[in-house]
Amino acid sequence: MEMLKVNFPRLQADIEALATIGRESDHGLYRMAFSDGDMAGRKWLLQQAEVAGLNAHVDGAANIHLHTRQQKDIASVVTGSHIDTVPGAGHLDGALGVLVGLECLRSIQAQGFATKRPLECIAFTDEEGRFGGMLGSQAMCGLLSPEYVLGAEDLNGMKLQSAMSAQGLNAMDILRAQRRADSMHAFVELHIEQGPVLDRQQKSIGLVDSIAGLFRWQVRLIGESNHAGTTPMDMRRDALQGLAETSGEISRILEEYGSPRSVATIGHVECYPGAANVVPGRVVFSLDVRDTDARVLKDLADAFRRAIAAIARRRELMFEFDVMSEIAPVKCDTGILNTIEHVSRALGVEHLRMHSGAAHDSQFMARLTRTAMIFVPSKAGKSHSAAEWTAWEDIEHGANVLLNTLYRLAME
Amino acid sequence: MEMLKVNFPRLQADIEALATIGRESDHGLYRMAFSDGDMAGRKWLLQQAEVAGLNAHVDGAANIHLHTRQQKDIASVVTGSHIDTVPGAGHLDGALGVLVGLECLRSIQAQGFATKRPLECIAFTDEEGRFGGMLGSQAMCGLLSPEYVLGAEDLNGMKLQSAMSAQGLNAMDILRAQRRADSMHAFVELHIEQGPVLDRQQKSIGLVDSIAGLFRWQVRLIGESNHAGTTPMDMRRDALQGLAETSGEISRILEEYGSPRSVATIGHVECYPGAANVVPGRVVFSLDVRDTDARVLKDLADAFRRAIAAIARRRELMFEFDVMSEIAPVKCDTGILNTIEHVSRALGVEHLRMHSGAAHDSQFMARLTRTAMIFVPSKAGKSHSAAEWTAWEDIEHGANVLLNTLYRLAME
Repeated sequence: MEMLKVNFPRLQADIEALATIGRESDHGLYRMAFSDGDMAGRKWLLQQAEVAGLNAHVDGAANIHLHTRQQKDIASVVTGSHIDTVPGAGHLDGALGVLVGLECLRSIQAQGFATKRPLECIAFTDEEGRFGGMLGSQAMCGLLSPEYVLGAEDLNGMKLQSAMSAQGLNAMDILRAQRRADSMHAFVELHIEQGPVLDRQQKSIGLVDSIAGLFRWQVRLIGESNHAGTTPMDMRRDALQGLAETSGEISRILEEYGSPRSVATIGHVECYPGAANVVPGRVVFSLDVRDTDARVLKDLADAFRRAIAAIARRRELMFEFDVMSEIAPVKCDTGILNTIEHVSRALGVEHLRMHSGAAHDSQFMARLTRTAMIFVPSKAGKSHSAAEWTAWEDIEHGANVLLNTLYRLAME
Repeated sequence: MEMLKVNFPRLQADIEALATIGRESDHGLYRMAFSDGDMAGRKWLLQQAEVAGLNAHVDGAANIHLHTRQQKDIASVVTGSHIDTVPGAGHLDGALGVLVGLECLRSIQAQGFATKRPLECIAFTDEEGRFGGMLGSQAMCGLLSPEYVLGAEDLNGMKLQSAMSAQGLNAMDILRAQRRADSMHAFVELHIEQGPVLDRQQKSIGLVDSIAGLFRWQVRLIGESNHAGTTPMDMRRDALQGLAETSGEISRILEEYGSPRSVATIGHVECYPGAANVVPGRVVFSLDVRDTDARVLKDLADAFRRAIAAIARRRELMFEFDVMSEIAPVKCDTGILNTIEHVSRALGVEHLRMHSGAAHDSQFMARLTRTAMIFVPSKAGKSHSAAEWTAWEDIEHGANVLLNTLYRLAME
């Protein structure tokens, strides 16, 4: 079978063009959902679709859908990602998946290939979480409630409703964005890895076989604040020592209960009262634990709870925790993965089976249809920063792998 | 020899009276150096001295000196402490030593005892450190420079010079407060322990044989911030893990290099960027280490430096530290301690030899004259809090021990 190729210079020009929209003086991008930058990006995307002769529609959640053709009775083969960004972002996180998707639709349409199924590319709304994260894909799954839509606000206290209304949109329309599962045949998202694995191993393509789930706790250890000079070591109830010991248990717990894919991070720490000459009486810290297997996650949660409880008991600390977030892991579709692998081999592209440690819209799309992801390398693993970079050669490999994968799925 | 007794009801009344000056609605005291509360406390103290017929003078550093009589050619026996407080303080830290001292002078004067040496009670300026700590006793030792006096400011950026000028005082006069060593025969400070040892051991009196020295570092460990989901455990340079490991080494280092009196505290921690889903790339923390032996302190500093450097090397972190503070330990005078012990026995008061883990004006007075301290218990070790408390019975024991100690020293 002959392998299709994207028009790579055209894709490059698009990547460079979108990378100028929302750029500010620190060289980072500011296209947070429903900001002026985001709206400018959306407008630009719709213009490109029009130039390419693609159909477009925007659903109630402001997700942009581009189509080679619309055919009510045949389920589409869908790709997509997001063009909204974190503040100070790089130019590839999300945007690459949308632009490669656009290029795939254009290439297939321009080359006049008659696919059995229509192709579709979605730019999802607020993946990055100004108002909670993966808003557009959750809306498509019908997971959002009126309470959520009315209550959501950003870190500055701006309501989702106000932010949308300022851009001429109605937040309650989000509740009308739910999509029928049988309208999709498959979903494949191309995304930068945002981690160092492909770069270290010098592979162009990651075949994402699963997306990690996570639990995130806020842990509080409460002891007693005392004078750092007058309180003998054996009369202390030092909350920070409890945190330190918890941190020291991470590698043991991952080794005993985790998989090679497990990660655990203490990323946020507050220590009270926080004076050099006072034994800390209270610490508050985050514990973020991820794995691709729900049972492993449960074992890890149990192990961390036991370990922290034992540390707290021994050190006479009070131990409390709240579950801040809990996301179930997702397995990708084996059939699609096999297609991606086959296509990568046929294109002679070095690839690696791996998982995604970050969350993506694919996690929700997997509730609706067969889903998989394709990763391209992130230089030095950098993301959420203006230093985000992927070699053009890797982008070209990724685009051609996606193109041929979508084409095969569209011929099923 | 007959034992003298203070007029305890009079002392109680003074303690209760001073405890109302600078009190705010949270039940804590606010007599920070040169605040209105501090000035009101000073005025009250001078009034009590006048009522008691004691001589008083205020030196250039605003230290208040009360005397039974002034005699240029005979060195005085001196006691004292401070009446300034931390914000939200209890009523005993410092104030007790001044008020018991005042009561000792009054008792001896009122009972008409003819001592060979004059007695003196000093209320030192800014012991608690609004402008650096132990300002008055350092000034008496001639340790302050014009640069220091002109540069000193509080946490709100208020200059020492402005704070003094607002109360009608001239900061440069601080440099004229130096005192001749031969004007003092001995110095004894009574203070609350501010720790739990006497309370746990149910002793009324602590004989302080030494005052701990300390070193305080600001340590910085610098690794790399990375996505907590996409960065495998073995590709991380997690600065917080470096802090946790350092904290875990504290007990080993104290056991290997410290004495039973050594303490080490990490009290202040900042963790960057501080998000639950980001591996911390940088931590800044304080390390406060104390002991009563200068050689032990040096060994501990070496051991901590080696340990943190090794942890940083292994975890690929950059390790930097600044010495924020370094105070040499002080040995108390054996002769005075024997007198205190003898007096305690004669009064039938339960006592304990111990050290002071906190810093006190005595540390500087020891540069000028033979010095010792007497501790009374702090309930549950609490201090620097409105919960500060010492049983009246223990205060009475402490006052009588100080009275008889001063009397004996004054007869030498």
